[in-house]
Amino acid sequence: MEKLIYLDNNATTKVDERVLEEMLPYFKEEYANPSSMYDFSKKSSHAIKEARGKVKDLLHAENEKEIIFTSCGTESANTAIRGYLSTVKNKKHIITTKIEHPCVLNVYKYLEKQGYKVDYIGVNSNGELDVEELSEKITSETALVSVMMANNETGVLNPIKEISEIIKSKNSETKFFVDAVQGAGKVAIDVQDLGIDMLGISGHKLHAPKGVGALYVNSKTMFTPLIIGGHQERGKRAGTENTPYIVGLGKASELAIDNLDYEMTEVARLRDKLERGIIQNIYNARVNTGLAKRVPNTTNIGFEYIEGELILLHLSDLGICASSGSACTSGSLEPSHVLRAMNVPFTAIHGSIRWSLSRFTTEDEIDYVIDKLPSVIEEIRRISPYQEELKALKEMKTVK
Amino acid sequence: MEKLIYLDNNATTKVDERVLEEMLPYFKEEYANPSSMYDFSKKSSHAIKEARGKVKDLLHAENEKEIIFTSCGTESANTAIRGYLSTVKNKKHIITTKIEHPCVLNVYKYLEKQGYKVDYIGVNSNGELDVEELSEKITSETALVSVMMANNETGVLNPIKEISEIIKSKNSETKFFVDAVQGAGKVAIDVQDLGIDMLGISGHKLHAPKGVGALYVNSKTMFTPLIIGGHQERGKRAGTENTPYIVGLGKASELAIDNLDYEMTEVARLRDKLERGIIQNIYNARVNTGLAKRVPNTTNIGFEYIEGELILLHLSDLGICASSGSACTSGSLEPSHVLRAMNVPFTAIHGSIRWSLSRFTTEDEIDYVIDKLPSVIEEIRRISPYQEELKALKEMKTVK
Repeated sequence: MEKLIYLDNNATTKVDERVLEEMLPYFKEEYANPSSMYDFSKKSSHAIKEARGKVKDLLHAENEKEIIFTSCGTESANTAIRGYLSTVKNKKHIITTKIEHPCVLNVYKYLEKQGYKVDYIGVNSNGELDVEELSEKITSETALVSVMMANNETGVLNPIKEISEIIKSKNSETKFFVDAVQGAGKVAIDVQDLGIDMLGISGHKLHAPKGVGALYVNSKTMFTPLIIGGHQERGKRAGTENTPYIVGLGKASELAIDNLDYEMTEVARLRDKLERGIIQNIYNARVNTGLAKRVPNTTNIGFEYIEGELILLHLSDLGICASSGSACTSGSLEPSHVLRAMNVPFTAIHGSIRWSLSRFTTEDEIDYVIDKLPSVIEEIRRISPYQEELKALKEMKTVK
Repeated sequence: MEKLIYLDNNATTKVDERVLEEMLPYFKEEYANPSSMYDFSKKSSHAIKEARGKVKDLLHAENEKEIIFTSCGTESANTAIRGYLSTVKNKKHIITTKIEHPCVLNVYKYLEKQGYKVDYIGVNSNGELDVEELSEKITSETALVSVMMANNETGVLNPIKEISEIIKSKNSETKFFVDAVQGAGKVAIDVQDLGIDMLGISGHKLHAPKGVGALYVNSKTMFTPLIIGGHQERGKRAGTENTPYIVGLGKASELAIDNLDYEMTEVARLRDKLERGIIQNIYNARVNTGLAKRVPNTTNIGFEYIEGELILLHLSDLGICASSGSACTSGSLEPSHVLRAMNVPFTAIHGSIRWSLSRFTTEDEIDYVIDKLPSVIEEIRRISPYQEELKALKEMKTVK
């Protein structure tokens, strides 16, 4: 196989071998419909119950009944937001952020057309949320506040506990949804301590397969299902249970708990090494998030006066996978809505690259990128139309 | 492993080994997000394209762009019905049948609460649809007609082409949705010849895994997505593509085409053998569907004056899996809505068992059931409170 250095773990992750191992029997001999009545289905229904317990543990939910399995993070978000709002027909105000994932933002764009008023809270130049602005927007009409746990492009963490305390102090009936797709497995999550009412995660962002997610809805939050049909998931999500993937998400949750320390120390160390290695060796590179608090695996680096798509193309030739934004919007040449919300200067926004590591990233891989990247960037700088600016920037950095 | 004779293939099927084989690389080395831009994602995105072509072939769609991958048959139905209706806000009349699957019926129950008028067409005592009644109900206000291809409990086939011709002759703007979850892989499907606008299938009913489905929406049918978010599936279904399962559904579709002859001949022969073997040896058994045209794998047999749950319990002890109705409603002691719509006599409705075979069912398994069942039934008859009626029935059958 050709060289592959995968530094796009915020787009998707490799399925952990132990996750696949645990799933395989449910593709083979244990294929019963878990809702069936005979003995043959008992192992499947028991496996789902166990997996639910493991996801409950990952999120520190009070009760496993609060965990609903879905087909992806997008379905989790759609279900939480629309499922909750359909129970509070008289309140039409929602607060979210300018930097949510497209799957969440597009739900709010849709809801605006349905008559909801949505406030989009901004961030500062490091990507940190304007919590004061959020606080001021909460009124007696606010049905929902929706803030992602960690941004997918920058890795910046939002102050979830602080926000939940503000919400409860200003309107105790307002519910709080957290899209934790980029938080789960990277930082500790305790939905009770954080004061979260609903929270969504995606399996394929934590080494389970693509095509499974989970939604936490606390027992105090009313809710109607998005996908209507049979009585699966206690009537909260119809459709025959995807036993193998549910088992896989359970195992991935267990492994995420076990590996959290490693993420916070070793993955963070490699990320920091990569970041330093790039900044020190490439004069037109800047960390777009400054000193903001981030998940341990992500760094977003702007290469001034050059094109990000060109960098990615060169990296792809070297077997290095990184990205310029969310995979869900790839193909678009518009700069990312997240970097725009941060007012990343125009000189850097088009040349910004997200690097996202995982527990499978090795020191050798990081060394390889640090070694190869400078000449890639130099080559691209040579064809930049901003030669004067680059020269000035180089001189300024050298003087420093 | 203990003996397992799985005759509940309308609840779910075993994943074909060739399907699993084809999926495995996408759990292992080929884990890229298919929406990513680098070379590493190309194999995944190409595999999805190929799978889409295979589903297109299974359904004889005109264009692979008309195929949308979903997470299950229930999502396919929800998406088709609600996604289409949201584009025709002025017409509020729907026609469906009394014997649809719960996932479809519950969508219509929900829509009734939203102000839709829904007519539920009945069936005769063999489970055959009252096409004349359906025809009479179509008006200029009818937005949608929704008829399943084959019933999950009885296997009875609905005259889809006849119905589509009636619809087009009475109101050419009315769209036609067909839930083909129980048809795909058992009978040939040609959406163009049959005049179908939207059609849903489920992977795990044709030897792909649980947790994947597909939806055909022809290019003339307007449609808004159910799950909102990223641009996946040409904007018709958001969420990172479930590459392994999509590849699996593609392979399963290919195998379904290859095996259709076998289904129509060998599976049908084994089903007929089972049916005859039961009817000839057990005097209180009756085929609930008479001579209605059915899919080749299903028979629904009523055992008069005894309890179905008790039969299933005894069968489970013998390693035989069958069911009394849809897995989605199992646990309920109410007789099936399908058998009630057929007016199956009260003497048989509580003792009705669905037997559903697959291409993996063997002659030995059928022989085993034919051999073991009579004594199971005899044992249960002994504790029936209807001893006089059973005696009379036995005498009547013996005279015959």
